[in-house]
Amino acid sequence: MSSTDAADAADVGLLAPVRAGSPAEWATGDRAFLQAMLDAEAALTRAWATLGPAPAQAAEAVTAMARAERYDPRDLALRARAGANPVIPLVADLTAAVGAEAAPYVHRGATSQDIVDTAMMLIAARTLPGVLADLTRTAAALAALAAEHRETPMPGRTLTQHAVPTTFGLKAAGWRHLVLDAGDRLSAVRLPAQLGGAAGTLAAFADDGIALVAAFAAETGLVEPLLPWHTLRTPVADLGWALAFTCGALGKLAADVLVLSRTEIAEVAEGSGGGSSAMPHKANPVRATLIAAAARQAPALAAVLLGSLAAEDERPAGAWHAEWQPLRELLRLAGGAAREAAELAEGLRVFPQRMREGLDLTDGLIVSERIAAVLAPYVGTARAKQVVGEAARHVATGAVSLADVFAQDPGLAALLPKAQLAGLTDPTRYPGAATALTDRALRRRESAATKAEEPT
Amino acid sequence: MSSTDAADAADVGLLAPVRAGSPAEWATGDRAFLQAMLDAEAALTRAWATLGPAPAQAAEAVTAMARAERYDPRDLALRARAGANPVIPLVADLTAAVGAEAAPYVHRGATSQDIVDTAMMLIAARTLPGVLADLTRTAAALAALAAEHRETPMPGRTLTQHAVPTTFGLKAAGWRHLVLDAGDRLSAVRLPAQLGGAAGTLAAFADDGIALVAAFAAETGLVEPLLPWHTLRTPVADLGWALAFTCGALGKLAADVLVLSRTEIAEVAEGSGGGSSAMPHKANPVRATLIAAAARQAPALAAVLLGSLAAEDERPAGAWHAEWQPLRELLRLAGGAAREAAELAEGLRVFPQRMREGLDLTDGLIVSERIAAVLAPYVGTARAKQVVGEAARHVATGAVSLADVFAQDPGLAALLPKAQLAGLTDPTRYPGAATALTDRALRRRESAATKAEEPT
Amino acid sequence: MSSTDAADAADVGLLAPVRAGSPAEWATGDRAFLQAMLDAEAALTRAWATLGPAPAQAAEAVTAMARAERYDPRDLALRARAGANPVIPLVADLTAAVGAEAAPYVHRGATSQDIVDTAMMLIAARTLPGVLADLTRTAAALAALAAEHRETPMPGRTLTQHAVPTTFGLKAAGWRHLVLDAGDRLSAVRLPAQLGGAAGTLAAFADDGIALVAAFAAETGLVEPLLPWHTLRTPVADLGWALAFTCGALGKLAADVLVLSRTEIAEVAEGSGGGSSAMPHKANPVRATLIAAAARQAPALAAVLLGSLAAEDERPAGAWHAEWQPLRELLRLAGGAAREAAELAEGLRVFPQRMREGLDLTDGLIVSERIAAVLAPYVGTARAKQVVGEAARHVATGAVSLADVFAQDPGLAALLPKAQLAGLTDPTRYPGAATALTDRALRRRESAATKAEEPT
Amino acid sequence: MSSTDAADAADVGLLAPVRAGSPAEWATGDRAFLQAMLDAEAALTRAWATLGPAPAQAAEAVTAMARAERYDPRDLALRARAGANPVIPLVADLTAAVGAEAAPYVHRGATSQDIVDTAMMLIAARTLPGVLADLTRTAAALAALAAEHRETPMPGRTLTQHAVPTTFGLKAAGWRHLVLDAGDRLSAVRLPAQLGGAAGTLAAFADDGIALVAAFAAETGLVEPLLPWHTLRTPVADLGWALAFTCGALGKLAADVLVLSRTEIAEVAEGSGGGSSAMPHKANPVRATLIAAAARQAPALAAVLLGSLAAEDERPAGAWHAEWQPLRELLRLAGGAAREAAELAEGLRVFPQRMREGLDLTDGLIVSERIAAVLAPYVGTARAKQVVGEAARHVATGAVSLADVFAQDPGLAALLPKAQLAGLTDPTRYPGAATALTDRALRRRESAATKAEEPT
Repeated sequence: MSSTDAADAADVGLLAPVRAGSPAEWATGDRAFLQAMLDAEAALTRAWATLGPAPAQAAEAVTAMARAERYDPRDLALRARAGANPVIPLVADLTAAVGAEAAPYVHRGATSQDIVDTAMMLIAARTLPGVLADLTRTAAALAALAAEHRETPMPGRTLTQHAVPTTFGLKAAGWRHLVLDAGDRLSAVRLPAQLGGAAGTLAAFADDGIALVAAFAAETGLVEPLLPWHTLRTPVADLGWALAFTCGALGKLAADVLVLSRTEIAEVAEGSGGGSSAMPHKANPVRATLIAAAARQAPALAAVLLGSLAAEDERPAGAWHAEWQPLRELLRLAGGAAREAAELAEGLRVFPQRMREGLDLTDGLIVSERIAAVLAPYVGTARAKQVVGEAARHVATGAVSLADVFAQDPGLAALLPKAQLAGLTDPTRYPGAATALTDRALRRRESAATKAEEPT
Repeated sequence: MSSTDAADAADVGLLAPVRAGSPAEWATGDRAFLQAMLDAEAALTRAWATLGPAPAQAAEAVTAMARAERYDPRDLALRARAGANPVIPLVADLTAAVGAEAAPYVHRGATSQDIVDTAMMLIAARTLPGVLADLTRTAAALAALAAEHRETPMPGRTLTQHAVPTTFGLKAAGWRHLVLDAGDRLSAVRLPAQLGGAAGTLAAFADDGIALVAAFAAETGLVEPLLPWHTLRTPVADLGWALAFTCGALGKLAADVLVLSRTEIAEVAEGSGGGSSAMPHKANPVRATLIAAAARQAPALAAVLLGSLAAEDERPAGAWHAEWQPLRELLRLAGGAAREAAELAEGLRVFPQRMREGLDLTDGLIVSERIAAVLAPYVGTARAKQVVGEAARHVATGAVSLADVFAQDPGLAALLPKAQLAGLTDPTRYPGAATALTDRALRRRESAATKAEEPT
Repeated sequence: MSSTDAADAADVGLLAPVRAGSPAEWATGDRAFLQAMLDAEAALTRAWATLGPAPAQAAEAVTAMARAERYDPRDLALRARAGANPVIPLVADLTAAVGAEAAPYVHRGATSQDIVDTAMMLIAARTLPGVLADLTRTAAALAALAAEHRETPMPGRTLTQHAVPTTFGLKAAGWRHLVLDAGDRLSAVRLPAQLGGAAGTLAAFADDGIALVAAFAAETGLVEPLLPWHTLRTPVADLGWALAFTCGALGKLAADVLVLSRTEIAEVAEGSGGGSSAMPHKANPVRATLIAAAARQAPALAAVLLGSLAAEDERPAGAWHAEWQPLRELLRLAGGAAREAAELAEGLRVFPQRMREGLDLTDGLIVSERIAAVLAPYVGTARAKQVVGEAARHVATGAVSLADVFAQDPGLAALLPKAQLAGLTDPTRYPGAATALTDRALRRRESAATKAEEPT
Repeated sequence: MSSTDAADAADVGLLAPVRAGSPAEWATGDRAFLQAMLDAEAALTRAWATLGPAPAQAAEAVTAMARAERYDPRDLALRARAGANPVIPLVADLTAAVGAEAAPYVHRGATSQDIVDTAMMLIAARTLPGVLADLTRTAAALAALAAEHRETPMPGRTLTQHAVPTTFGLKAAGWRHLVLDAGDRLSAVRLPAQLGGAAGTLAAFADDGIALVAAFAAETGLVEPLLPWHTLRTPVADLGWALAFTCGALGKLAADVLVLSRTEIAEVAEGSGGGSSAMPHKANPVRATLIAAAARQAPALAAVLLGSLAAEDERPAGAWHAEWQPLRELLRLAGGAAREAAELAEGLRVFPQRMREGLDLTDGLIVSERIAAVLAPYVGTARAKQVVGEAARHVATGAVSLADVFAQDPGLAALLPKAQLAGLTDPTRYPGAATALTDRALRRRESAATKAEEPT
């Protein structure tokens, strides 16, 4: 297999701008996976040495040869087909590399799945700190926005329509709340080593089995599992879920930025918008777009992993193999989306004046709820809603404000004198508990976990 | 709308045997949902009374009228279309029912989503205890099976082929492990009340907003939320995930039972198999089938909920509405699957003699790994695997056992005297750490949470 | 099982406003499914009579008893659990009802799946005409809108930003195009009867097997299958796909209506908007919301059906059972969405004046592409884009129009005299081929199939 | 970006054995996509030249520079992020490469999506012929198997249990039927070129718009679209569906091979099984495993594409971007699965003797349906089923055959004399119409389309 061939077959992120060049991409590429498999093999031989059976030199030899650059991932990929996984050819190459003395201690007692699963968890352990760091950056930037705009009024929108006023501070605080939720869920995922041998009984490890699992886990830096989990796929399902949740949580931020960036709304803009190949004037919300695209893909990938929970036998024929690409893609989507979110949040431009103007767009209707509530004690709730509803139709069809409609109705004018009405229909004076809620949300500490160091 | 009409349009579980007649079905039907919405409305008025603004009589009147049998769910369903949710017509009917004195305190300050979301969480709170109870039953039955069969050898199978021996105890312990994982995840889900008003600012509650949320949550028995979560959908996503995980975890049990029940394998059988409309002799693994069917549906439904995390604005136009049926269906699938699993586990018949016979099916090949490991120190790992591979081909193509092949090879016979060979090729003498792992798994306590009482 | 019990467990559409009261709902309820199963049973006995073995009286007796109101769907649902499908108890009841003479000819030679699959196809055959009729209504209303507005200019939007002008006619023509695509796909679905007997070999039909399948298909009005399709699930996958496509196609219409209905945009409005339980002034785009919610659920359900293609054996343990609810739900979502779409399209209010105002929102930037193209021959493409880009930044940050920027730049003013510039920057003079495309799209005939009569 | 960096980030198929080294992989890699984008750009300039505006030399220059090896895909991937798609940097590089004369005719009037969409369709057009060729190979091999084994009896299995006999010929004919269905669906997909300009109005093409689209389509070899389909995503949804259907259809073949390959069943085996890293004797059904894994992933990816039908505006912010990776992955999964299926079908080893032995496993119960049918005229259907059911329990619990049970019951023995019973309980004499159905299925011609030449 020539290097040209390999280059031709290679994907380098051309269709995946969300993660191109991101830490998550580097941490999850085929070379990184190859290294993680080698790390697993080396950890296994070292664990054998720790317990006695393997000589220290074997552990040293395997560790020395466990460097990805010594092997050709494309060649391994092609040879992986014969046995449906890349460990079989890798073990052959590694065994050949370490020399006759160490050879018997390569992959000793392990099954392919021990190595692939451990490698996948190592990949996750190496990817998540970067994702969490970007979530931390995102949360910090959103906290600053929420604090700065804790009293900045803006239209609240429901089912696409102006509803009642809210504040940008509360909006940003809500975004942060979800980001912290994502960080909590990612941080809580346990990443165990895998070691079970052919059918998960540790039989090939003779009497050393359980001790070897502990030693192996220690060597990898991963969690020691209670049981081999070849077909007890909680770690994969948990991880996939937390990653998809992260994409979705960031997807809320993106969905709002996309709405608020619309030409007609323009209450926020990305720090530097994306260009267009056709239109010189465009400044597109590209980060939000890429995050939104990630949020659309992640749930389906998580569903594949959930489906693989129903894995028959001691190793399934397909359910396990179906996990590899979706799990890696989820790591990349979450990692890429987190990078985009951090940049988006740190660079977001907010336009309070546009928000203020937006509050007047409905000529007072945005506080119709309030007027109805004030009228209700006088005329009853139903009648109050009816009156305001009729007034709203006047406003919607004519060039007249809600305040004017009321001022012109003698009965209502008697109930709501003009001065009171002016206050009631001022959309900046109906913030509710938005500020208090913002403050409360900001008191939520970032979870310690989101600052955790890389487990390995 | 006549009752005949309603009956014609009604679903009563005809296409959903997994949950027909189950506690989860009763807890999630339209009548239960109607009751939960009424409970939410009554709790709101009581919360208002607690804080002062509403008279105690209003709270009493609303509570008295908040009984599902007073309202027609079909009529509400038809009227729900106009506003895209059932709260609007329900509030109209409830307001009419409570009398003029209490009317102003019905749904005061709330938005439809406050009621639907709170009702959904109440439904979950009322469904989960039954699900957890069935998981507890399942785990207990599996623990008993694991203990009883902690040394019962059986073929371990990977990629559909006999691999090396395992024990039925370890298998049952693994099933239990997943069931406990499911219980832990379900128990950890927080079910908050929802109260935010029109755009989540609590504006219509005047100065009472935050206190009212606390009082409302207390009245419902649900958790007090930090923020209104109209578009911060962590609770729904968490719940959907835990339910889908539960279906998947039980799906592993089902997948194994389906394999082990096969006519040719027959190592286990459901306590009472299902009949057939065509074949009098059939005893189908119907519980496993129904669980497997649930496990196939749940991931897709959870994916819909994950997709709804990206909810724009203060209330989205579609993302929220898309949650209702999938979330209910997940409650039913998990609840139904848990019931089936409990019955399956409690009634499972295990046939150790069939398992023992199965170990001999490959004429010793099932311990080929062991032979190779024993030979390796003498002839090297690669040569050992090659020798055993060649022997395996002899066994596979001829009527000869692995032991015979070795006995007939002078070179190998010298290395492995006949007596030693007999021990090495006895599949019952290669259990590895299966028993130790089983014991270890059984020491895992059920989480306290799986025994929790109903939160409301 | 008392009727009260049944009512308590029943779903009557409370959480499914998209389809409450729709033809698709009536056609797919448990009673309709019960009737379809009975129709399948009666057709089978009549087919037997056609070929000879069964007496005509038996066919008459079974047909006479094959009326859903004679059976209790809730009771059948509860008894369905034992065998994992509702046919077994139904056959028992039907056999008891028809009398001893006819009893031997009930369900003769059939397997449960023959009846459930045939019933599902009958349900589809009864639901699709209504769906297609609503698609036809929708397409007709959209054609009228496209024709009326074939020259109505409006902002074209990409990545949420104004791009270049388009017309509302082209937009409506595009919506119609997708609706016709959906109709074509739905109309192309073949709905076969199912008859295979216990393992799909027709063995229980003795020598009459293949003739009986033809007679059975004729009696049901469904297509005669080439092979029993117990585990060759093309019909289900095709149907599910076409339904999900329909939801998605209508989802595009909904997505656009939701954007164009936004308070800030207000270029269209639903004929009668939905109310709010909190805000008297709201007129929500509820039909678009319900369609959007359907479009979010359908892909996941179609994925479950696609997953069930991989059905093992002659009848699978789970894959088949997992189809029932998703397929029914897809029929309902597509049927409900089509009803909403027809009403939405027929009632849509269009505001050309708002569209015209929108074209001016960017002070000429919406035609930046055009200006750059005009400049390119003079200054080169790259320089032209740069110049326009710089001008765009001036416009975006100041209260100045693109025309003004150019007028004030001597170099550019020389290239583009003021009079020419006025024409170039008039957004209504840059329609491209929008009108020609609209006309071309409207020449696409509705497929004959979308007017097809009900197959049964 | 050094080549080392690119290599580090590259994926070369290490986690995707199903497609490593397959034609589909080469046809869909980043380099192939880069070439397809360049082909689209060159076709556009040539189309301009055809119509007049562009000089022939420009067309030649662009075509000459439109060679993927001249550009660095990794560098393009990194620069793609800024505008959320790879066309913007590619146009810059291509423009620089062609020289000043041709530069104005590069990407003239097009938008990024025109190029990406056209490239995706080109990729599909280049991938599908190989997929169809492998489906044709698969179908041919299955036809041969069906013909060879048209009378080979084997156990029919439902819900994992032996049901009644079937033939391997009918099974293989059913597999082929699905493969032909897949070929028909893939062949029916229309692959249109995309050309709409900034908002799909062809405005930047002045009066040449519609003619240019035709010329462009002709240059690409793709279908001319009726309308620009930037947000009318039928082509993508159709393609995704057909690919996912293909994976599912092959998944049925895989599911059956996995069952029939089980150690206990062993009625078929893959031509050369896959090895194991732990167990020298293993011959795993690796092709079936890889196909099964593909069938588990494809539905979720198709669901993402279905979800992207609901694309707002003239170009959506996320829905389009979410299509790229899932569509490519579907091409690879279908292409890889088709390759595996062709090899599997061509090499499948069938063991009629094992099938024959399997028919006796239930000591006659596999024909219980038949016995009940024969008894029914004498004792009634219900009693007949009851009698056979009781007999079945005797057989299941004792070492006795169904024939023996009946022989020992005087009443039954009178009805069914021993000689007749022997014939009735001979499982090879109950084939039903299996052979006739097989012949009928084999008369279904391969669709002409599956032999179609590559469209470009």
